[in-house]
Amino acid sequence: MQVLPTYEDVAAAARRIEGHAHRTPVLRSRTADEELGAQVFFKAENLQRMGAFKFRGAFNALSRFDAAQRKAGVVAYSSGNHAQAIALSARLLGIPATIVMPQDAPAAKVAATRGYGGKVVTYDRYTEDREAIGRKLAEEGGLTLIPPYDHPDVIAGQGTAAKELFDETGPLDALFVCLGGGGLLSGSALAARALSPGCAIYGVEPEAGNDGQQSFRSGAIVHIDTPKTIADGAQTQHLGNYTFDIIRRDVDDVLTVSDAQLVDEMRFFATRMKIVVEPTGCLGFAAARAMRAQLQGKRVGVIISGGNVDMERFCALLA
Amino acid sequence: MQVLPTYEDVAAAARRIEGHAHRTPVLRSRTADEELGAQVFFKAENLQRMGAFKFRGAFNALSRFDAAQRKAGVVAYSSGNHAQAIALSARLLGIPATIVMPQDAPAAKVAATRGYGGKVVTYDRYTEDREAIGRKLAEEGGLTLIPPYDHPDVIAGQGTAAKELFDETGPLDALFVCLGGGGLLSGSALAARALSPGCAIYGVEPEAGNDGQQSFRSGAIVHIDTPKTIADGAQTQHLGNYTFDIIRRDVDDVLTVSDAQLVDEMRFFATRMKIVVEPTGCLGFAAARAMRAQLQGKRVGVIISGGNVDMERFCALLA
Repeated sequence: MQVLPTYEDVAAAARRIEGHAHRTPVLRSRTADEELGAQVFFKAENLQRMGAFKFRGAFNALSRFDAAQRKAGVVAYSSGNHAQAIALSARLLGIPATIVMPQDAPAAKVAATRGYGGKVVTYDRYTEDREAIGRKLAEEGGLTLIPPYDHPDVIAGQGTAAKELFDETGPLDALFVCLGGGGLLSGSALAARALSPGCAIYGVEPEAGNDGQQSFRSGAIVHIDTPKTIADGAQTQHLGNYTFDIIRRDVDDVLTVSDAQLVDEMRFFATRMKIVVEPTGCLGFAAARAMRAQLQGKRVGVIISGGNVDMERFCALLA
Repeated sequence: MQVLPTYEDVAAAARRIEGHAHRTPVLRSRTADEELGAQVFFKAENLQRMGAFKFRGAFNALSRFDAAQRKAGVVAYSSGNHAQAIALSARLLGIPATIVMPQDAPAAKVAATRGYGGKVVTYDRYTEDREAIGRKLAEEGGLTLIPPYDHPDVIAGQGTAAKELFDETGPLDALFVCLGGGGLLSGSALAARALSPGCAIYGVEPEAGNDGQQSFRSGAIVHIDTPKTIADGAQTQHLGNYTFDIIRRDVDDVLTVSDAQLVDEMRFFATRMKIVVEPTGCLGFAAARAMRAQLQGKRVGVIISGGNVDMERFCALLA
């Protein structure tokens, strides 16, 4: 029986990341309020270090390493934000980091990871298994593997974003959080249950990648093929064991939105709120807008998960 | 002899706008710090209501109306952010607003001004004089004219952005502020001289529109033709009487940057800091970057004035 992280772990993570992670602003928009008929509070994790909430969980996990772990180092496999979050956190804490990335990962991401001081090990994504490579590096070199979402310290770290939101706004009626592997959603749920017990908590996925919704509604983790969606941060194929147990216990429902809705919200954020949000970061607000009939007069939290979209793609999507 | 506004006026304005204007966040960027070799504090007025600092001065000026002025209403002439700032502030304060705009003003701006409840009076910019129309409306209807920058209450209101910055960061070594008509720069200078006396204050203009630099260095207000620059918020032809006197007294120098530098910083803000900044809003940071050799190890403030650029233009500039 696995021991799930609790709100106390979120609070401890908040103390560990203080002064290292940005305390991101809670943004308001008169237009958003009018369009939804509600008060909307946006937690802007696109303004977090590295442009996404992932830094919180990575830094928290690495902060808990003991002396032997720190010396041997950390290994992570990721082609996205988790890799950079681990590499940056490791550099700040003086821990060697090895990141397993596909050979054909975007050069900019490889460069960014190396720029943070991470050692990059590449693999062929068609013939090799990144998890096996990660495990092998961990076993042979004594490195500690930190997975992208299914880890108590990662979940507790991600929960600090919602904790900061509630600390600033007080209790809310509803909270909308994007859902990929479930690290952010399960951490947010821990914070919400403690700080705003009456708050309805919604996870939001892209329509094409609704494994979380299927899992939530069926009561067992459902695996799907890598979904086709512009929300690249939510292209995970299944929830984790920890994240699923917390989501099943604490989340009210899992909703889905279309890619077209995500593009509409990217445009809204850029034109009305002057912020760059990646498609995955638009999931929460897109679902809140779709539910606006039920949110009249309510106080609504939305977590904007990140802003890592290159400008060429951003402009192509908005064109 | 005109009586210049003081820091006490800025502090009073801060009390008036509290709860009405957003207290915008001060953003940090590790990349900006590394590239400049300095600690850079960005006051993000692109995240202000209506997307620009202009709301501060307009709301402050209208808050000071007496009962007769409130009843008769306000008139302003502007094709840009000042019009919307006056219209929105007037609506919030229950004051009728008339905005004089050119017949060929962008439909979106006219609609936005009307959306805030403002009455729009149009004129032909080739045959009619907007100042004369504004004065006539003021005289005939008893309306109070609020000019876009050369007014003590407007200047004091704009100074609240820098006041909030210093309240959060403590004293800084240098402050970079964009310069059009001088409302933001002169207000910022009042705040800086009171809260951070040793801070060097720089106004920054587009190269093509360096009337402020010419004025500052010659000691008299220089008029120029409407300059050709992408920094549309700094296309003013001359400083005001109040703003010039404060700038001459309190500002250390006026610098210029090229349009190409502004585009580079728009890209930096979007890709690294995940915020949309209009060309004028990039003036301060572009100048700070150009001066980086002299800023090593320093604590540097940059005011980002606004984010009102439509996405089509934004993407065209970044392409």
